[in-house]
Amino acid sequence: MNKGIFISFEGGDSCGKSTQINMLKNCVEASKYRDRFLFVRDPGQSPIGEDIRKILLSLDSQPHPLTELFLYLASRSELVNKIIIPALDQGKIVVCDRFYHSTIAYQGFARDILPIDQVEQLANLSACHIQPLKIFYLRLDPQIALQRKQDTHFDRMEKEGIQFREKVQNGYDYLAKKEPQRFVVIDATKSPEEIFDKIKAEISKTTGFDL
Amino acid sequence: MNKGIFISFEGGDSCGKSTQINMLKNCVEASKYRDRFLFVRDPGQSPIGEDIRKILLSLDSQPHPLTELFLYLASRSELVNKIIIPALDQGKIVVCDRFYHSTIAYQGFARDILPIDQVEQLANLSACHIQPLKIFYLRLDPQIALQRKQDTHFDRMEKEGIQFREKVQNGYDYLAKKEPQRFVVIDATKSPEEIFDKIKAEISKTTGFDL
Repeated sequence: MNKGIFISFEGGDSCGKSTQINMLKNCVEASKYRDRFLFVRDPGQSPIGEDIRKILLSLDSQPHPLTELFLYLASRSELVNKIIIPALDQGKIVVCDRFYHSTIAYQGFARDILPIDQVEQLANLSACHIQPLKIFYLRLDPQIALQRKQDTHFDRMEKEGIQFREKVQNGYDYLAKKEPQRFVVIDATKSPEEIFDKIKAEISKTTGFDL
Repeated sequence: MNKGIFISFEGGDSCGKSTQINMLKNCVEASKYRDRFLFVRDPGQSPIGEDIRKILLSLDSQPHPLTELFLYLASRSELVNKIIIPALDQGKIVVCDRFYHSTIAYQGFARDILPIDQVEQLANLSACHIQPLKIFYLRLDPQIALQRKQDTHFDRMEKEGIQFREKVQNGYDYLAKKEPQRFVVIDATKSPEEIFDKIKAEISKTTGFDL
């Protein structure tokens, strides 16, 4: 139904996701396909989504875990309906920094306040059943991830400790195993250049654009 | 399990709900039971809930109906978990301006984007299965309600037209019919004093406090 292609990036905090998305942005920007791509982030992007993102990530906020879940769902619903679906209808390649798999890993597996299948249903509802064709999952041992980030600023989610991060990783591993045809699992201990080569090759194959 | 008593007020916009809640507040304040009552509003009340309320009611916002639904659920989850449950555990009489029946009437019946039973399940989830013992439903013909409010300021929800308001009323009627033992249906064309006498009598009976 949608003419475009939807791609997401997933992984625990400090896995190198932002670095890879920036490398992809730069690569796309330097290519002749720059107008065919749209980069977005979840939570956020829409005006209401950015307001919600502030509430979710501010260190001053202490939302109840169920409130946190509903806020992620609200931000995603806005992003999908106002930005992603119209872009896909125009035939764009939409690249999203996190999507509903984050909700299942973080709010489902790590917060553990509702049964996983219920969180999956809610996450799917918030995405209006839009699914990424490819999910780049940057997999990094939570101990290494924590060490990577030690001297910089943490937001509220990044402040969570090792046990939380291990549960997030378990969640992603479960999801990757469940949908091997859509998940591209990447060893995030590799160098950024090595990782990017793999991602670029996969995106070129998926989109048919020689990046 | 909870020692307190939970009471909500419901109705379409301009039904006179705020007037009645204010009359009840004044009555309680003048009584010896003033420390036993807590008045709250949904959406809002908690710091995060008030931020969400601003997004929901601002005329500058145009959230997608699904985003709107999730934002109401987020605000309610915060209110219930941070404020209502602790107050009920302390034995308080908690009086709430709107609660999950509003979500079913407005986002379920009037917005009509999801099946009603799904909205009911979500509304119950956001309330953590806390149910009002009594729901005062101020029932007013939507045409009369619209005429009442003509020369004052409207928020985003109040700006909805007659068809929307009729669907809201259908929603409340459905809910009141479904739970006659909890719903107190009040003819809101009566004078504020007549209405308040009825509400006061019912609350005195329910709480055992002679207001």
